[in-house]
Formats: sequence, C-alpha cells, structure tokens
Amino acid sequence: MELEIIFTIEPIRTGPVELPSREIGSVLEFQGLVREMEEGKALAGLFYEAHGPMARRVLERHFLELHAGYPVVAVLFIHRLGWVPVGEASLFMRVLSSHRAEGLAFLAEAVIRLKQDVPIWKMAAAPGLGNEGASSG
Amino acid sequence: MELEIIFTIEPIRTGPVELPSREIGSVLEFQGLVREMEEGKALAGLFYEAHGPMARRVLERHFLELHAGYPVVAVLFIHRLGWVPVGEASLFMRVLSSHRAEGLAFLAEAVIRLKQDVPIWKMAAAPGLGNEGASSG
Repeated sequence: MELEIIFTIEPIRTGPVELPSREIGSVLEFQGLVREMEEGKALAGLFYEAHGPMARRVLERHFLELHAGYPVVAVLFIHRLGWVPVGEASLFMRVLSSHRAEGLAFLAEAVIRLKQDVPIWKMAAAPGLGNEGASSG
Repeated sequence: MELEIIFTIEPIRTGPVELPSREIGSVLEFQGLVREMEEGKALAGLFYEAHGPMARRVLERHFLELHAGYPVVAVLFIHRLGWVPVGEASLFMRVLSSHRAEGLAFLAEAVIRLKQDVPIWKMAAAPGLGNEGASSG
C-alpha cells in the first residue's frame, strides 16, 4: 500500500489523481468540512491541534490493520491544523483500490478510528472571537 | 435534495465543489474507472451505451428512495457513454451531506442500484481492435 500522511496549516489543496497501475477501478475522495452549527451553537470555525509524530504513528498502525481486511492500493490522508473556518476542509482522504467495496469500507473505518484515539484535538470558536485573524480569511 | 444527472460522451470533467449551505460537513466523490483486466482478459477499454431518458427516470427514482433513508443534500451523477479507455472514469458521483454516514450509505447503495436495473450497458473491447480511434487517445 502506498501511504502518505500530511499535516498542514494551509488550506488543503490536492493535485490530480495519479494512478499507480491500470488495475485501479475505484477512486474515492472524502472531505470533512467544518459546519457552522455544532451542538446548537453557531461557530466561526474550529481550531485543530495535534501531536504530530504520535498521530502519524497511530494512523499508520490503523491503516495497516485496515489494509489487512480491505486491501486498497494507495491512501492519501491530509489533516489541516490550526484555524479552519466554517465551509473549509479539516480532513481529506483519497483511497485508490481495484474495487469500490474495499475502498468504501477502508474509508468509513478509517474516519471512525481517526476520531477514536488519534491525538488530534479540536476547539470550537464562536463568531467574532478573533481567531479568524489566524487564517487567510 | 439537489440532483443533477449527466450523460456525456466526453471525458468526465468536474468543477470545484459548490456548497449550498454552511451545514455541509461531508463531501464524497467517487470515480469508477475502467480497469485493464476483466474476467482474466486484458481490455483496451469499454464501450457504454444507455437508454438515456429511461436511465434518467430509473436513477431519479432510486435516488429519491435512497434520500428517504439517507437525507443527503446534493448529488451530482455523471456517466460517460461511448468508448472509455482503461484508466479513465465511466462514472463520477459527488454527494454532499451534513454528516458522512448518510453520504457513504447513499453512495454505496446508489452504485449497487445502478448496476441492478438502470439501462446502461457495457461491451468489452480487447486491445488493438480499433475502438481506441473513437477516443481522443
């Protein structure tokens, strides 16, 4: 499995899909966006922090375990850190596989595990509290 | 639900995601690509034909049924027709939803139903049979 894990404080930008072989039949891309309403409150965005090296180790372990059951070919995982305004992506995953079934299962399980025990934390920020200044707007 | 269904004989090209609201938390995109090996034979590509108006009606019915269980916000469905070479997409779906769970379920079910009873047919073409000339290469 080709595996790339990226943490970035910039808005997530992705290039075109590069196919490692002529046996890729499924390209799945998922973006998790920051929504305005969370638990009944209007947010301006979320602030993400991570323990980078540990998050990477835990993610690698999860992805290897998932790969044993769902043999996907390539995974690109990008998580944004710092201030993420409403409507922008905090998470991007691209999963290439021969068939869509293993790609869908891998993606679904990966996001569940991400939220379980990977050391990435988010803090809510209400509109007008000034955190917006940390982003490019 | 915003629903757009497109059939095209051109390579599938998609624009950037446009968010209909600040409550979209999940953007899922799926591309189904033509693989080289199918049932043990090497293909140059596949040739797709559809009964366009009927395919659209059947898809709309399926998507509305799925929406009742998985209330996604917007669906873009693009199917390529004619000659599709190996490594290019015959199908593209983009599903926007508040949460990823309904988006993943909608997408997975939609592709299963597409292959069940939507009047779109594919024919295999072995390498060197000349169908490649119909594409832009």
